[in-house]
Amino acid sequence: MKRIAVDAMGGDYAPQAIVEGVNQAIELYKDIEVQLYGDEAKIKPYLKENPRIRIVHTEEKIDSDEEPAKAIRRKKQASMVLAAKAVKDGQADAVLSAGNTGALLAAGLFVVGRIKGVERPGLLSTLPTRDGQGFDMLDLGANAENTPHHLYQYAVLGAFYAKHVRGLTNPRIGLLNNGTEETKGDSLRKETYQLLVADPNLNFIGNIEARELLNGVADVVVADGFVGNAVLKTIEGTAMSVMSQLKSAIASGGLRAKLGALLLKPSLYRLKDSLDYSSAGGAVLFGLKAPVVKAHGSSDAKSIVSTLRQIRTMLETDVVGQSVQEFSEEE
Amino acid sequence: MKRIAVDAMGGDYAPQAIVEGVNQAIELYKDIEVQLYGDEAKIKPYLKENPRIRIVHTEEKIDSDEEPAKAIRRKKQASMVLAAKAVKDGQADAVLSAGNTGALLAAGLFVVGRIKGVERPGLLSTLPTRDGQGFDMLDLGANAENTPHHLYQYAVLGAFYAKHVRGLTNPRIGLLNNGTEETKGDSLRKETYQLLVADPNLNFIGNIEARELLNGVADVVVADGFVGNAVLKTIEGTAMSVMSQLKSAIASGGLRAKLGALLLKPSLYRLKDSLDYSSAGGAVLFGLKAPVVKAHGSSDAKSIVSTLRQIRTMLETDVVGQSVQEFSEEE
Repeated sequence: MKRIAVDAMGGDYAPQAIVEGVNQAIELYKDIEVQLYGDEAKIKPYLKENPRIRIVHTEEKIDSDEEPAKAIRRKKQASMVLAAKAVKDGQADAVLSAGNTGALLAAGLFVVGRIKGVERPGLLSTLPTRDGQGFDMLDLGANAENTPHHLYQYAVLGAFYAKHVRGLTNPRIGLLNNGTEETKGDSLRKETYQLLVADPNLNFIGNIEARELLNGVADVVVADGFVGNAVLKTIEGTAMSVMSQLKSAIASGGLRAKLGALLLKPSLYRLKDSLDYSSAGGAVLFGLKAPVVKAHGSSDAKSIVSTLRQIRTMLETDVVGQSVQEFSEEE
Repeated sequence: MKRIAVDAMGGDYAPQAIVEGVNQAIELYKDIEVQLYGDEAKIKPYLKENPRIRIVHTEEKIDSDEEPAKAIRRKKQASMVLAAKAVKDGQADAVLSAGNTGALLAAGLFVVGRIKGVERPGLLSTLPTRDGQGFDMLDLGANAENTPHHLYQYAVLGAFYAKHVRGLTNPRIGLLNNGTEETKGDSLRKETYQLLVADPNLNFIGNIEARELLNGVADVVVADGFVGNAVLKTIEGTAMSVMSQLKSAIASGGLRAKLGALLLKPSLYRLKDSLDYSSAGGAVLFGLKAPVVKAHGSSDAKSIVSTLRQIRTMLETDVVGQSVQEFSEEE
């Protein structure tokens, strides 16, 4: 049985979206058990009773605008902190939260703890590409500054994730850079390039440019946390902006455009689906002793189900245990 | 008379697109003179004779895949190099090229030269926002590494550009960062923040996030060249990807979708226009002794006209002369 500790109180639509997602996932996956951390009175109205779901009551929770490190230190009884602590104490195998990202990163690092040998766990997400295959990118912002060796470890971790969780046999690893030639980039990129090219165990395909990211040029993309975060947010912002401009172009196009849009509706929904990050699951703080996964703040029940499926796969393939092994050999 | 040196041989559609753009601009703007650098035999077929256009013949040119610094050093007679040299020698007031970006940056730095006091000229473009106002961002990749003082100078330069060229009275300056709070970011961002906030002459509005860029949250956005380049390319790549996914969603939607798309055509063209970077002109290597402007490699005649209009405005407002003044006072 895979035991997943879920923070029921984090996210824009908590606890309803979280609890409804758990209700659905528990039906789909007979090999998971969920511990729901949060306010019992607020959880119960949405919960379908199931022997594999247990509420762990607490009234404290961390808000999305709280200073992460402080919140973790002060709110020892917060739903997110208790969920992380359950993993630390061996009561659960993984944590899921849609709440304050910084706080979850802090809880992951300070409560769950790093894998020995992994210097700086990185935030990893599977992002969608045009061809539907997607790619894994890290670090998406767990760190504001990284060294070449951190980036090298992200390549190893990312390859592990792509292999075990996504089932790729020989994932192509790219380094996000401002040009494709070997000599491109700042000193961080140049030194990282040399570390990656020197490791025969990595299928390193060289530098890739941000313009090509969504074209599926690599299976794993390595970036420092600052750049990874900026790129991720730019993808989100640009996609939203184009869609909203499409809407206003239609709205200002009169009856003709409205009729056209009506006919196009199914196609536009397909487009929206293909841009939908939530179906790929949440962002994993990867490099910790257990899966710690952040679902998007605006998660609905469907994205919670996807994220629970992702966690289940991580537990099934024991990707964390495999990483522990790998990094103990590296030492 | 404003004398503009144009590299007729740079860009995917050179010399035709360049020459045709010059033909149109010379009709529109009676106060410009154009020197066309390149192969006379290849230019002539497209050229409408005009007393304010002069061909300066040369057979050498720099290709898009050449190593920039080497190309500039070796090809002394290349159209781009001669155009830059015309500015240096006082024969022209500005340079335009749609060719090899790196080579143009090198020609700008080593032939035209920096404004005294400007440590690292930055690449600046006006990018489109949802509301049509746009924002200026720099550095978009002239440098792979920057110090806090470089970024501070980008704020000063960007504000100058927004004021003089775009006519904004008190441009809002934002620092691209991984969160809006003052304490966010790596050491580069933290130190830059303090420099910006300490200058009462700058309308510094604080940190802004990449997700908000296209929402018009600032008039000038300051970034280091590595991050600016990554963000610019991500915007381009994501917009292209969404549009291409829209196309395939329509294509796979059968007759109904095709009819809808037909009705929507005018609206879709409006969308395409609003996403069109070329109408905003080219990228300026700003901080040099004269306007050195890079038109997009895929420029058509229309974008060459826009870029010539932009250069004309830069010369009319003497934004470079004003910057020289400003930086001589800073010393």
